Amino acid sequence: MASTNTSTSCKVVLASAIAKRLLEEVASGIKALKQPPRLHGFLANDDPAAEMYANWTKKTCEENGVDFTLRKVDREALEDELRYANQDQKVDGMIVYYPVFDTMRDRTLQWTVSLYKDVEGLSPQLISNMYQNIRFLDPPENTRKSILPCTPLAIVKILEYLQIYNNILDYGKRLHGRRITVINRSEVVGRPLAALLANDGAEVYSVDVTGVQQFSRGSGLKKQKHESRDMPGWALEQCLPISDVVISGVPGEKFKVPTHLVRDGAVCINFSSEKNFDPDIKEKASIYVPAIGKVTIVVLMRNLLRLVQNQPQANGDH
Amino acid sequence: MASTNTSTSCKVVLASAIAKRLLEEVASGIKALKQPPRLHGFLANDDPAAEMYANWTKKTCEENGVDFTLRKVDREALEDELRYANQDQKVDGMIVYYPVFDTMRDRTLQWTVSLYKDVEGLSPQLISNMYQNIRFLDPPENTRKSILPCTPLAIVKILEYLQIYNNILDYGKRLHGRRITVINRSEVVGRPLAALLANDGAEVYSVDVTGVQQFSRGSGLKKQKHESRDMPGWALEQCLPISDVVISGVPGEKFKVPTHLVRDGAVCINFSSEKNFDPDIKEKASIYVPAIGKVTIVVLMRNLLRLVQNQPQANGDH
Repeated sequence: MASTNTSTSCKVVLASAIAKRLLEEVASGIKALKQPPRLHGFLANDDPAAEMYANWTKKTCEENGVDFTLRKVDREALEDELRYANQDQKVDGMIVYYPVFDTMRDRTLQWTVSLYKDVEGLSPQLISNMYQNIRFLDPPENTRKSILPCTPLAIVKILEYLQIYNNILDYGKRLHGRRITVINRSEVVGRPLAALLANDGAEVYSVDVTGVQQFSRGSGLKKQKHESRDMPGWALEQCLPISDVVISGVPGEKFKVPTHLVRDGAVCINFSSEKNFDPDIKEKASIYVPAIGKVTIVVLMRNLLRLVQNQPQANGDH
Repeated sequence: MASTNTSTSCKVVLASAIAKRLLEEVASGIKALKQPPRLHGFLANDDPAAEMYANWTKKTCEENGVDFTLRKVDREALEDELRYANQDQKVDGMIVYYPVFDTMRDRTLQWTVSLYKDVEGLSPQLISNMYQNIRFLDPPENTRKSILPCTPLAIVKILEYLQIYNNILDYGKRLHGRRITVINRSEVVGRPLAALLANDGAEVYSVDVTGVQQFSRGSGLKKQKHESRDMPGWALEQCLPISDVVISGVPGEKFKVPTHLVRDGAVCINFSSEKNFDPDIKEKASIYVPAIGKVTIVVLMRNLLRLVQNQPQANGDH
């Protein structure tokens, strides 16, 4: 039939394309510094995947003017090592490859990293600022931006690239009118991501195996920060058909987003290491982003740059 | 309460701001021509409002390098005058101030204006191209763009300015995923507008007193052009709560879009000379455009520019 187009309309956007544009901005910021920023990675587990990721971080950092040191540390010594690094003026930023103990003790490690050197954005004050929609470390001067957690921020940067953020609207309100389903409500990615998007004006449906929560600033964004509430009786059947954007990060091979529930023309983003979307999503989505890893690493460097810019001596030697 | 903001989140965007940006593009195109393009306006009624509009057009044209001639003509002589002007090499574009007879005879007048001089985009071949989603006058060379009717095109330009068109997506598909309610299904604005938006990928609900029609290229934009179908039992109650964009152009003071049905964060555009939205729309909408007239006049000049650029001798003297 002449009026039927058998190729799909879906635009597949690769993380490499998004990372490239973000990298230009970050790389020029790094070049403008008096000396390369120094990032220390702490590896205290035997996971070969963590070591591979650490080596990949090192490579990307060095290609872009960041001085990266990988430190292999006994896990019992790690907490002290982090405290030394907090005091060490030769260290600008720190990253720890988790899990280390894979217990609540990892939480203590996260809190040990100094607020001023935490490229991952996991320090309690940073997390607290994020949930409360406080965007600066030094109110009311507001000269030093708070650091956001890497993976949620990577997804925000992807949504900006895809123009889901509408910059006709005022800063902080650019997702107003968007309905977004986030499948995953972990403390590290899913929940902070839902909070970030709702604080920027979206109505967010946060989904995990226990059910659905809505994150929202209310009609007309009357609240200054999001509030969350349980949505009894809701499941993907209720969320997906009304969502403009679907973001999924479920680990394991079993879970797939049910394509038939996704709204025609939705924007679909996968942040799981597994493929959470079936290939037929391209018959329905307007935009599909199959993976985000390359953006996350650029965001890591961007956070490092910001930490250095936040240092009082940023414009002098350090 | 500290967490409640009493000012509204709504961004009111004035036609003058949108017109200004569009004008920069049009004015530089006009300057690049060898001589000012010549637009003739034909006034054949006694309506003081039409004369006022004609004088306003003249003023705006002359401020922007367009040579505008207003011709007052007896309505019985108009058809012949239009035929003379079609042949007159000193006339680049023509506009007729309707209604003239306010009967089907006006339709004949519209068809009398040469396709090559029709700034209003009302010639049968232009209208036919628009409904069929044929974007050029000279396929397969595709060097001469078809002219679109002024008011619908003005609304498209407004939606581009507001970033409702997502230019991450391919040209011709940039509204994929958007649901748009258009209240008005006149032959001059509402119906062509619904067709244009659906051809660009939107799912459009076209509403008038007789009911609702859906205009759509189907799931995944599988059809090359839109198809329309009746939606029995549908009314504003069904359309508005699921629409990202609401465009209303109902004449008369009586009609108001029911604010309580509008989706939180919707983009609302009024193209009626009356106010179709109540002031409380600002409590709900993310963007509100209260009027579009100033954009329409720039689109008129843009169409004129395109007609001149379409002339075979466009790059020589004319």
